[in-house]
Amino acid sequence: MSQIAEIMQQTQAAFEVYSKTTPAQRAGFLQHIAEAIEAKREQLVAKAHEETHLPLPRLNNEITRTTGQLKMFAAYITEGSWVAAAIDNLPGKPDTRKMLVPIGPVVVFGASNFPFAFSTAGGDTASALASGSTVVVKGHSAHAGTSLLVNDAIQEAIRLSGMPEHTLQHVLGPGNSTGKELVLHAYTTGVGFTGSFSGGTALMRYAAEREKPIPVFAEMSSINPVVLLPDTLTQNAAALAKKLAGSITLGMGQFCTNPGLLLGIEGPGLEEFLSKLGEEITQVTGQPMLHEGIYSNYKENLSSKSSHIAYRGSGEPTPAIATVSAAEFLNNPHLREEVFGPFSLLVVCADKAGLKNTLQSIKGQLTATIMGTDKDLVENTDIIALQTSLAGRVIINDVPTGVEVNSSMVHGGPFPATSDARFTSVGTSAIQRWVRPVCFQGFPDALLPEELQNANPRGIWRTVNNEWKNS
Amino acid sequence: MSQIAEIMQQTQAAFEVYSKTTPAQRAGFLQHIAEAIEAKREQLVAKAHEETHLPLPRLNNEITRTTGQLKMFAAYITEGSWVAAAIDNLPGKPDTRKMLVPIGPVVVFGASNFPFAFSTAGGDTASALASGSTVVVKGHSAHAGTSLLVNDAIQEAIRLSGMPEHTLQHVLGPGNSTGKELVLHAYTTGVGFTGSFSGGTALMRYAAEREKPIPVFAEMSSINPVVLLPDTLTQNAAALAKKLAGSITLGMGQFCTNPGLLLGIEGPGLEEFLSKLGEEITQVTGQPMLHEGIYSNYKENLSSKSSHIAYRGSGEPTPAIATVSAAEFLNNPHLREEVFGPFSLLVVCADKAGLKNTLQSIKGQLTATIMGTDKDLVENTDIIALQTSLAGRVIINDVPTGVEVNSSMVHGGPFPATSDARFTSVGTSAIQRWVRPVCFQGFPDALLPEELQNANPRGIWRTVNNEWKNS
Repeated sequence: MSQIAEIMQQTQAAFEVYSKTTPAQRAGFLQHIAEAIEAKREQLVAKAHEETHLPLPRLNNEITRTTGQLKMFAAYITEGSWVAAAIDNLPGKPDTRKMLVPIGPVVVFGASNFPFAFSTAGGDTASALASGSTVVVKGHSAHAGTSLLVNDAIQEAIRLSGMPEHTLQHVLGPGNSTGKELVLHAYTTGVGFTGSFSGGTALMRYAAEREKPIPVFAEMSSINPVVLLPDTLTQNAAALAKKLAGSITLGMGQFCTNPGLLLGIEGPGLEEFLSKLGEEITQVTGQPMLHEGIYSNYKENLSSKSSHIAYRGSGEPTPAIATVSAAEFLNNPHLREEVFGPFSLLVVCADKAGLKNTLQSIKGQLTATIMGTDKDLVENTDIIALQTSLAGRVIINDVPTGVEVNSSMVHGGPFPATSDARFTSVGTSAIQRWVRPVCFQGFPDALLPEELQNANPRGIWRTVNNEWKNS
Repeated sequence: MSQIAEIMQQTQAAFEVYSKTTPAQRAGFLQHIAEAIEAKREQLVAKAHEETHLPLPRLNNEITRTTGQLKMFAAYITEGSWVAAAIDNLPGKPDTRKMLVPIGPVVVFGASNFPFAFSTAGGDTASALASGSTVVVKGHSAHAGTSLLVNDAIQEAIRLSGMPEHTLQHVLGPGNSTGKELVLHAYTTGVGFTGSFSGGTALMRYAAEREKPIPVFAEMSSINPVVLLPDTLTQNAAALAKKLAGSITLGMGQFCTNPGLLLGIEGPGLEEFLSKLGEEITQVTGQPMLHEGIYSNYKENLSSKSSHIAYRGSGEPTPAIATVSAAEFLNNPHLREEVFGPFSLLVVCADKAGLKNTLQSIKGQLTATIMGTDKDLVENTDIIALQTSLAGRVIINDVPTGVEVNSSMVHGGPFPATSDARFTSVGTSAIQRWVRPVCFQGFPDALLPEELQNANPRGIWRTVNNEWKNS
């Protein structure tokens, strides 16, 4: 038996026990993971800094976000209404009761750009463990040492909480062999991934080719269009330039929500904005990127766009702003591709019709932003509707970087931003990826899950004959 | 431009208007469809009887179910909480608000075995229209005339309700060319299908091969295992036999939830049950099936299993019960395939371990049933758990045929029962297939959908900073 086959047998056996733990037991386990990570904070930050070059404050913040996510899911499953319980028991009809149950073992791929929040104990893992699914993590090679340390923390929490030994397992190895074998294994029931378009679509293909297809949640690529409306350009060009320059170069642009595309209608406002944005960008000095592959891709991307570049910062990677006309943008699909790094492309449209055409040429996005005064917004509800049709999150007058972790977040969006626009990988709703509904018909009360019992012992919100009740 | 391309352009244009209608407008439209169908009831029943051979009472019931579904979705979207609204607006944090929005034009394939409830104005159409998605129906050739009449009723309702002209469009043609073209078209965002495994998996392949993959909800094949536990066999053999014989031969077995597999542990109880079941089945006379293709498939299936057949009814199709040992069943994957018609296979297991092995060899199912006394159930919670892992609906002491249309129904299940175990095609939750979440960040109150406005004008249940409120 291969190592992967053994791991998958172990995760399946663990699932049969772990999926039957109570929400309180799983909440305690998630809390223990958060505590074990917190206890190793200094060691984790040092190792991640060594492996990813990310600055210490950012890594410290990311650890706080990661433990915050674990605690958020602990609270969410403790409250418990997320199982979407529904009971129908009208006289003369069968007694049917529905709730969400975990799907089975899940494979999580660590992301290169978030060694903590989207990796070993990140949002995919936290949401899967919260649901009652077991997890096999494929650690990212760019921060394998960090991943192993986080795994140590999780294993400690497994022992402390009395969870089954193989509730979470950690493997390293190349994505195109180890990763493929994990996705193809019969016991795998779902996959979480944050990374490149080529990586994500490869996993989608493996999953579709299986004898039993499984869902893949791949968060892949997004250029996050920002529309700058005329009145705000006239009134706030300098402030907008400052805000966007910060967002474009934040973390050397290594965020899925980096604003890689700016759109505006030509005129003095847009010219002033561009000149101010240029002033801002030229002041930014590049800092080391996550790994050599990302840096060399960025350099290649910049050089292929060199004829369009209007402003450059200093150092390596070199922050840069390019400009093109809407006509050029429409004729060159290459310009619609994500440039992962501190770069943004401003598309100058002749008029509103050109702006609409340009937006209509863009594929699915994680975010879509509109900058506008009250007057702008009222006059451009059609642009807001277009942006909404493109993305999982629509933002007015703020930058797309900075993803809140809460119950109303959607970090997802139409293909190719993700493989499945119906789900989010950030926030409490991320748990929905790892569950399926089951209807229990004619069950004696004592054999029902607590969430569906007559007395509602967990006090969750549910519908009883279509009426909302928490008693 | 091909006829399909023109239809898809029209549905996309209609979607841009229809998706912005209010829930009250869509509820009124669904009511009008129900009324227009009711007004044509006699004509519809006569045409469907001519085309499908289904008995008149069954067709009348199916029309009542179909109009009931339309009214159920009207009530569901009027209540409105289904959009899963969540608001986070704590001081010092961005204001983020999430709800479900329609995905876009949907293609619905009519099913051969339900000319009304799973066809032109059936559950797929009703749930998609309720969500705000437009629909293109590919009518089933086995009841094309019925489908055209139902389409007339829908068109009348479109005019009466003032909905966009192409909110629903109807096409006929072969599944492997017209159907394929519809699924491959760039404007199609989702597909609903009830039919064969080969048909469903072909649609899944087309959808995965698209430049932009889309979800396919295919309800395909299920043998609906029924476990007969020892104590109930000893006490209730005759009653169980009567109940199951009725379920196996209901509508000539042409239901997705037909109990095609019975499992029990050998002993006098099981012997008595089999003999009683034999008595019941031999009294049943076959009635014409839905169409020639289904009938010839059934005859072929029976003849390939002739060595196992223990009891036969009379007429054509001939109802039949076959028996095999667990060992034979495990060795012959052919026996695990669905036989669409009035047939069931009894697997005789030597002991409980054999019963568990047999269940573990079975693929995903729509339903899984356990027949047992209180004593049986308490002693066999492991069997109940195994059945739950297999299916979307788990039934204790009732037959799987007869699918309630309500908020707790799950008509879905792990592959190959359906393409996606996370969704149901029956009941209010069927609407979840045609939506995606959008997060609105920093929106002025007046630009938000009503469901997310501060005053909660629709009075829906939603979370505000994780607290459930309907005010």
